Amino acid sequence: MNAEKDNAKGMTVNYVADIYTGFPDKFGIPRQSGIVPELTGRIVFRPEYRDPEALRAIEGFSHLWVLFDFSLSHRDNWSPTVRPPRLGGNARVGVFASRSPFRPNHIGLSCVKLIRVEHTSDEGDVLIVGGVDMVSGTPVIDIKPYLPISDRRDDAVGGYSDDRAGYRLEVVLPPDADKKLPEELVKGLAGCIAEDPRPSYQEDPERVYGMEFEGFEVRFKVAGGTATVTEIERNQEAELDV
Amino acid sequence: MNAEKDNAKGMTVNYVADIYTGFPDKFGIPRQSGIVPELTGRIVFRPEYRDPEALRAIEGFSHLWVLFDFSLSHRDNWSPTVRPPRLGGNARVGVFASRSPFRPNHIGLSCVKLIRVEHTSDEGDVLIVGGVDMVSGTPVIDIKPYLPISDRRDDAVGGYSDDRAGYRLEVVLPPDADKKLPEELVKGLAGCIAEDPRPSYQEDPERVYGMEFEGFEVRFKVAGGTATVTEIERNQEAELDV
Repeated sequence: MNAEKDNAKGMTVNYVADIYTGFPDKFGIPRQSGIVPELTGRIVFRPEYRDPEALRAIEGFSHLWVLFDFSLSHRDNWSPTVRPPRLGGNARVGVFASRSPFRPNHIGLSCVKLIRVEHTSDEGDVLIVGGVDMVSGTPVIDIKPYLPISDRRDDAVGGYSDDRAGYRLEVVLPPDADKKLPEELVKGLAGCIAEDPRPSYQEDPERVYGMEFEGFEVRFKVAGGTATVTEIERNQEAELDV
Repeated sequence: MNAEKDNAKGMTVNYVADIYTGFPDKFGIPRQSGIVPELTGRIVFRPEYRDPEALRAIEGFSHLWVLFDFSLSHRDNWSPTVRPPRLGGNARVGVFASRSPFRPNHIGLSCVKLIRVEHTSDEGDVLIVGGVDMVSGTPVIDIKPYLPISDRRDDAVGGYSDDRAGYRLEVVLPPDADKKLPEELVKGLAGCIAEDPRPSYQEDPERVYGMEFEGFEVRFKVAGGTATVTEIERNQEAELDV
């Protein structure tokens, strides 16, 4: 039985959609989905999968799973261990005990909130989702509904991830932040920085970090447990890029 | 930016492991993971991914995600709608609003409980997991830890899947069931049948259904809301097959 299957080494996957978010680059993106609910994304189906029937009854679900290609994290090899940033970047854990993008099959799994289905004339039915943690333009492999009966595990214990679950930076924004960005985006930006995007907990209070977010170039410093945003400027280059 | 990625149509995935369960066939398997916790499986890594380091710190997690190939559900085409058995097999929903195996990329997502890591001499470190819903021999694409902070959504609403969340058959077992099978397997078997494996709610009280489970051939009938198991016999063929 299953002789054919046992011989197979793998399978081919086709992208069904792309997700567009406020992040042209990896730096600054929360390391898990759902952490910053204000971060929204648009899931646009590729033409061959763009059929409103394929979404029938999806609006009854509050949350969706997005399976995607960690397209900026391809490597020729995989390492059996990775160093989760949340462990300070030094402790090693097994790749199958982590959600690192650097894994034998670079597939990501994120749970997002379904905000609404947007009917468009040029892109068909688009899913507007919240709590994203993907780079803009990430190819999507599958969308599945979140089923509370099997996916919500009230007794789940999260290993080393639980130890730092409450860790956050305090974020100080410039006084005019809400004049530059709509309220939701200010919240989203502050949420990203509170997650401490620094690699390996660098501790240099003078160092200026830059991230791109929703067409803005943002700069901040971190001293102790406080991140101070020093600049929010519209990114001219990003606009020309579109 | 991302010109290469935008042109790509998909990616290739390699199987990293296989999962062995008590189910040589699809019939009788619960339709989601976690529903019947007594159903156990062994995840055996393929030699090229069999490195104990890749599992370092995994035992701190109570639950794991298993991404797998719905290897018995390959089709040349995909249909934008499917008919979930739990809706009686008549109502159609969109494939992206369902967990059906018949989908553009036939990848399954199950949440299992990590019971223990078994150190073996011939198969390396094997994951023993509970609450499985896969056919034995299913190829595994990825193992990820369940992170309560992002994966447990207390406010999740499950659309049409919530409507029948409490649906169960009462199961009447033969008086000698616990002499034929260990207690855990009796519970597992009863759990599977309580889930009502019948296709499309056939209502023929005389019809005998057969399923294979842990090397036993099991027969049952369903009348109203009660399933009566009429036979539990060791399957000679299954044993010769091994």
